[in-house]
Amino acid sequence: MNTSLAVRYVGARTLATGYWRPSPPGPGEVEVAPAYVGICGTDLHILHGDMDARLTTPTVPGHEMSGLVLSVGPDVEGWRPGDAVTVMPLRWDGTCPACLAGNHHVCHHLDFLGIDSPGAMQQRWNVPAAALVRLPDDLPLDRAALVEPTAVAVHDVARAGVRKDERVVVVGGGPVGTLIALVARFNGADVRLLEPGDHRRRIAGDLGLTAWDPGTDDIPRLMDQWTGEAGADVAFEVSGAAAGVDSAVAALGVRGRLCLVAIHARPREVDLHRFFWRELTLIGARLYTRDDFEKAVALIADGTVPAYRLISAVVPLAEASAAFEALENGASVMKVLLDCDTESRGESA
Amino acid sequence: MNTSLAVRYVGARTLATGYWRPSPPGPGEVEVAPAYVGICGTDLHILHGDMDARLTTPTVPGHEMSGLVLSVGPDVEGWRPGDAVTVMPLRWDGTCPACLAGNHHVCHHLDFLGIDSPGAMQQRWNVPAAALVRLPDDLPLDRAALVEPTAVAVHDVARAGVRKDERVVVVGGGPVGTLIALVARFNGADVRLLEPGDHRRRIAGDLGLTAWDPGTDDIPRLMDQWTGEAGADVAFEVSGAAAGVDSAVAALGVRGRLCLVAIHARPREVDLHRFFWRELTLIGARLYTRDDFEKAVALIADGTVPAYRLISAVVPLAEASAAFEALENGASVMKVLLDCDTESRGESA
Repeated sequence: MNTSLAVRYVGARTLATGYWRPSPPGPGEVEVAPAYVGICGTDLHILHGDMDARLTTPTVPGHEMSGLVLSVGPDVEGWRPGDAVTVMPLRWDGTCPACLAGNHHVCHHLDFLGIDSPGAMQQRWNVPAAALVRLPDDLPLDRAALVEPTAVAVHDVARAGVRKDERVVVVGGGPVGTLIALVARFNGADVRLLEPGDHRRRIAGDLGLTAWDPGTDDIPRLMDQWTGEAGADVAFEVSGAAAGVDSAVAALGVRGRLCLVAIHARPREVDLHRFFWRELTLIGARLYTRDDFEKAVALIADGTVPAYRLISAVVPLAEASAAFEALENGASVMKVLLDCDTESRGESA
Repeated sequence: MNTSLAVRYVGARTLATGYWRPSPPGPGEVEVAPAYVGICGTDLHILHGDMDARLTTPTVPGHEMSGLVLSVGPDVEGWRPGDAVTVMPLRWDGTCPACLAGNHHVCHHLDFLGIDSPGAMQQRWNVPAAALVRLPDDLPLDRAALVEPTAVAVHDVARAGVRKDERVVVVGGGPVGTLIALVARFNGADVRLLEPGDHRRRIAGDLGLTAWDPGTDDIPRLMDQWTGEAGADVAFEVSGAAAGVDSAVAALGVRGRLCLVAIHARPREVDLHRFFWRELTLIGARLYTRDDFEKAVALIADGTVPAYRLISAVVPLAEASAAFEALENGASVMKVLLDCDTESRGESA
C-alpha cells in the first residue's frame, strides 16, 4: 500500500479525509498501522476550533488507538512487524523541572501525539518506539482502543488514592466517568455515578453500577441515606460543568478528596469555605504514566474493565466526519471507534 | 474577688464592658483566670456582626489566651489552683461521623469557645477541664497567649506536609501567615512571604524572613529566579482575598500543594485548569488537634517561634473596645493582647 487514508483537521472547523503518501519511519520510530481509533472529547474540541491556538494545521487527530507494527525505523530494538500495540501518546523533553522530578507526563513542554503532533486517525502512523505499549496477542483490537481512556481512569483513581470500602461519587457518566467508576469498584470502593443522560445511566446499570439522575433524583437525600450523613470519601468531577464542581464538593464528607478530571477551560466559582470547614482536598489529575497504561491493558485483557460494552459504534475511517457529527449530537452514544482496516481493505491495493 | 470584668458582644456591632458575678465551675469544669487574651480576626468578624446568625448574644469573645487555674469543679482530676494553662477552645460531640473517624476538631457539631460558647475576654472563665493545655511554669504568659494561632500554623504546615528544602510561599503576612512561615522554616523549608503592608514586611524581615510586596515587586519574575522556573512546592493562602488565591495558584509548580488557611466566606473563582494541567492539590485546613496545640507550646517555649516579636501592644481588658478599633484601622499592628490581670489588680479586691 503506497497511500494512507488520513483524517485531517484543516482549520475552520473542517475535517478533510484523503489519501497521502506515507513517509518511512525515521530513526527511533516505528510505523504503525492503526486498527481502531476512538473519538475523544478532545478531538471534538479540535474540530470546534477550541484548540486552534495550540495546533499546526493541517493535523491528524486521534490518540486512543490500537494497531499493528508495520515496520521499524533505524535504531529501534524490541519491536517486529505484526506486534499488537497501543500508543501512549506522550513525548517529553526529559530536562524540565517536571521531568527532573519524575513527572514526565506533565512535562512543561509535553508533546501530545494527536494534538501537538500528528495522531492516529490514519492508516500509517510513525510514532516514537518509546511510546509503544505491547498488547496481548489475544486481546481484540477494538477493545484495546479503549486502553488510553482506561489509563486515564487508572491514573485518576490512583491520584485520589481510592481504597477498599470507601464511598466514591463519580460526577459524569461518559466514557471516562464510567471507566473511573469501574476502576474504583475494582479497588473495592462503593460507587455512585451521577449522570443526567438516560442512555449512559442505562449502560452504567448494565455494568452493575448504581447511577443517579441529578435532574430528577434528590441527590442530597440519597447521599445522606447512603453515607449515614457522613458524606462521601471521594468524588470525581468528570462533567466539566460548573454544576458538576458544586455537586462534587457538596457530596464530600470531612477530609473528603475531590479528584478533578474534567477540563474546565474557564475559572469556576468554588466553595472554598467548604474546603476549609470540612478540610477537603482537591486533587488535579492529568493523563497517565506508563504504569497506568500497562495496568489499563491488564484490566481490559482480564475483563475487569469490559471495554466492549462501552463501544457504541464502529465507523469506517472514511466516514470520520459523519461520526464526529453523530457524537456531537449524541447523549445516546458512549464511545465511537473509527475502523482503519475496513477502509484499508476497501480502498487500497 | 466576687465580680469579674468581662467584655461582651451585645449585638448591633457593640461591645459592652462591665462587671459580672462569676458562677462557680460545674462538674468537669475548671475556673481559669485569663491573664492575656489575643484579639483575632474572628473577634473582629464577631464585632462587625458577620457572625450574628451563629451567636447567642450577649456573648464573651476571645479564644487566644493564657492564664492560671483558680479553682476546680467536681469530678476534675489533674489540675490545681495556680497551674499555668492555655485553653484549646474546642468541644466536640464524639458521636458524629467526623469524630468517629478521629477528626474531632472538625466535629459536625463543634462548640468553639469564644464563638458558640462564652470565651476568654473576662477575668473568670469556666472551661471544660478537657480543654486545658498545660504551660511550662517559666513561659511568660504574654507569649503563651500566642499558642492558639501558633497551633493553627502547626496544623496548616502539617496538613501541607512541608518537608526539608521545599520552597514555600505564604500569601499574607498577618500573625497566622507569619507563624506559618516560621513553622515551615523550622521544618527546613525555604520560605517567601507575600505581604503588601510595610509594617508587617518589616517584622518579617526582623524575623529573618524574606518578604515580597505584591504591590510593587515583580512576583512572577522573582518566583522564576528563586525556583529556576520550577514553581513553588507549597503555597499557603492566608490573605482571604480573591487575589490571594490567584497568587497562590500561580506560584505553584507541577504537583504543588496549596494549603487553604483563610476563610473565604464567598465562593471564589479558581483556575481549575491550572489544577488539572499541573496536577496541583488544594488542601483545606481548619483549627488544630491537641498534638498541634502541644507542639505549639513547645515551639514558643524553646524560642523557635519568638512569639513576643509578634506582640504589637498590650491593652487593659477594660479598654477592649478601643483596642478592637485600633486593630481595624491598623495595617501597622500585628497581634494585640488584652491584659486581664491589670484590670483585676486595679479594680477588684
